[in-house]
Amino acid sequence: MVEKRMPIPVSEALERVLGEASLIGDEKVELEESYGRILAEPIVASSDVPPFNRSPYDGYAIRSVDSAGASGTNRISFRVIDHIGAGEVSAKRLSANEAIRIMTGAQLPEGADAVVMFEQTVETEQGITIRKPFEALENVSLQGEDVQKGEVVIDCGSLINPGTIALLATFGYSQVAVAKQPVVGILSTGTELLGVDDELVPGKIRNSNGPMIVAQLKRMGFRCKMYGMSIDQLDESYEVVKKAADETDCLITTGGVSVGDFDFLPAIYERLGAEVLFNKVAMRPGSVTTVAVANGRYLFGLSGNPSACFTGFELFVRPALLKMMGAGKLYLPQTKAVLGEDFTKANPFTRFIRASYDGETVSPAGFNKSNAVSSIARGNALIVLPGGSRGFHRSDTVDVLLLGMEEGASKWRL
Amino acid sequence: MVEKRMPIPVSEALERVLGEASLIGDEKVELEESYGRILAEPIVASSDVPPFNRSPYDGYAIRSVDSAGASGTNRISFRVIDHIGAGEVSAKRLSANEAIRIMTGAQLPEGADAVVMFEQTVETEQGITIRKPFEALENVSLQGEDVQKGEVVIDCGSLINPGTIALLATFGYSQVAVAKQPVVGILSTGTELLGVDDELVPGKIRNSNGPMIVAQLKRMGFRCKMYGMSIDQLDESYEVVKKAADETDCLITTGGVSVGDFDFLPAIYERLGAEVLFNKVAMRPGSVTTVAVANGRYLFGLSGNPSACFTGFELFVRPALLKMMGAGKLYLPQTKAVLGEDFTKANPFTRFIRASYDGETVSPAGFNKSNAVSSIARGNALIVLPGGSRGFHRSDTVDVLLLGMEEGASKWRL
Repeated sequence: MVEKRMPIPVSEALERVLGEASLIGDEKVELEESYGRILAEPIVASSDVPPFNRSPYDGYAIRSVDSAGASGTNRISFRVIDHIGAGEVSAKRLSANEAIRIMTGAQLPEGADAVVMFEQTVETEQGITIRKPFEALENVSLQGEDVQKGEVVIDCGSLINPGTIALLATFGYSQVAVAKQPVVGILSTGTELLGVDDELVPGKIRNSNGPMIVAQLKRMGFRCKMYGMSIDQLDESYEVVKKAADETDCLITTGGVSVGDFDFLPAIYERLGAEVLFNKVAMRPGSVTTVAVANGRYLFGLSGNPSACFTGFELFVRPALLKMMGAGKLYLPQTKAVLGEDFTKANPFTRFIRASYDGETVSPAGFNKSNAVSSIARGNALIVLPGGSRGFHRSDTVDVLLLGMEEGASKWRL
Repeated sequence: MVEKRMPIPVSEALERVLGEASLIGDEKVELEESYGRILAEPIVASSDVPPFNRSPYDGYAIRSVDSAGASGTNRISFRVIDHIGAGEVSAKRLSANEAIRIMTGAQLPEGADAVVMFEQTVETEQGITIRKPFEALENVSLQGEDVQKGEVVIDCGSLINPGTIALLATFGYSQVAVAKQPVVGILSTGTELLGVDDELVPGKIRNSNGPMIVAQLKRMGFRCKMYGMSIDQLDESYEVVKKAADETDCLITTGGVSVGDFDFLPAIYERLGAEVLFNKVAMRPGSVTTVAVANGRYLFGLSGNPSACFTGFELFVRPALLKMMGAGKLYLPQTKAVLGEDFTKANPFTRFIRASYDGETVSPAGFNKSNAVSSIARGNALIVLPGGSRGFHRSDTVDVLLLGMEEGASKWRL
């Protein structure tokens, strides 16, 4: 008798997974090591940005009051009394009709409240003349106009991106508190699996899921522990899984979760005393995706079919790992696009189709079955077709998960 | 007299930059080191995928001909003569009304041409009965249905993503030829710059551009050589730039490219005998972005203003580095979105505004000036507003460059 499993919707599966995530703490790292990590402290401005009124242009700092009435027929003269570059501070204070030559980024001198750009001046022997009046604070970058001292600029839980690094450097964070990264293990199961160096023999295939998941983790900035390939023997597999589960925060297995005679993971979960959150999801591919929790640690049982394995990782493992780090953004970026092909056959399960997205249209990236490998490499997105009784047609607008946009585009259309 | 520079359009600037890119060769790396690199060889299928006809389900392999006429009132019986898991090959050949119990992924036995799923059978003492006829090849994953042996599956110049890794593993590429990565140097110029550990003093700011570019390069999978911060002295700066340019394929400087009195890079380019491709681009921020070439090496003179520096890197440095590696996709991914705010003031230059994109609407990510730092960290996209005489309005559809989508989304809306 085959075990009957009840499929649950993807959103419910996701909720169950995320409900088990607990924070694993944080650590201090050097600023230069922090790119790609999750902030475990908010970035608080230790100073205003800019820290002083400064010149956004190369030109002359003046008192705006002295420019009143200037025009083409009434040029007003200024005597240039100093010359400062960025990083320099003038020791002088402007008096009436005095100017200081000032470079971009330099602090406005005492008394000055406007900057005249080079191209707005005519040089004379004594200094410059101008032909238009300037308002107070014209051409001035105001202290604190970008950020004010004490402000929480970036929240805890944000990904440290290049701009975050710029902010951290600006505020003198030579070290920064980031979330620790969960220890992730990978174990590929299946007697059919060969190593990448092995010759193909009848009935066997090379293990592609293991290396693929390593790369999916690398894309998130994670390293992982490899537990090799386990053959489909219950006792032996149990020992390997138990050891791996003890040593990791999150163990990802591939294969062995279906209802086949050598699919031992359900039995192993039971022996481990693990709580199975679900073992059937209303999605294609990857309906056999199983997630269990033992001693507060995740056991992700992904399908052995590459496309299903890939999708299971991105839909469930990725957000779980992010939540363990306290990340604010747990989900794949999503948009809508025009479907480039018909999917006339309805499917009761939600479909996630590996696809190519060009910013407007989204089309399947090739052969579309759960055992497909080529379309994973070719795609940069997943088309999401909700389950139900209807098909979908070319030029319908559909949901798209963006997954692989980092490669970029082959055309510049601006 | 201020030097008068002629701005050129962004697309022309990009063309000039890319016109100078030369390939820098390739190298072999281990499969596990290849994620994120650019393929320097096409991936050629060394075998069919799947490599043999196999079962996509747990069930029974049969000869379809034996199922003809099966129905609820005429169940047909099969004697089960063998039992194979994935990776196993049956030594038996099916005769009339024989079946072999077969697991997902296992090779179809000799004589079999269809698979009956467990749930389509009733077990008996001798074997199974079925209640419907099966067509030839029903429930069979056909040899080569995903990829055929000899096929070029992925082109040279593609980014190695997790799916590419799966393919490389499938075809036994334990090593893979990838493009060498250009040696990139970073030099921050400006007497106003302090290190991240320094206390703020009047007139000075901490160097944020240097660490930011390191992170922009890391996002592309690059490491770089740091040439520290150079003060604004012509002779000294010349020596540092010359050394750095000699040691790198691409030297990125920040600051010093405008028309200020201490902006020495134009003079340094001249002394180096470098060809200046342009020194003014019709864009905001970053109009002073300057690109030169000396001895076949790039000299990118980015603005010292953080937002301008950031944009200059992504618009010009990124595609140049990718082209030196023979990448097929050189440009930032692009889409269209609904503008979330008014930009009523026209600008003759094309604007690139750091923005937050939620898959539908795009809005400025905060303070919008070339010296802004905070909005770089907060944004995950750039709004592109073409230069001209018109403004733009909330709910206009505008072009968007996706840049930072990797952080993901805070909501699951499926």
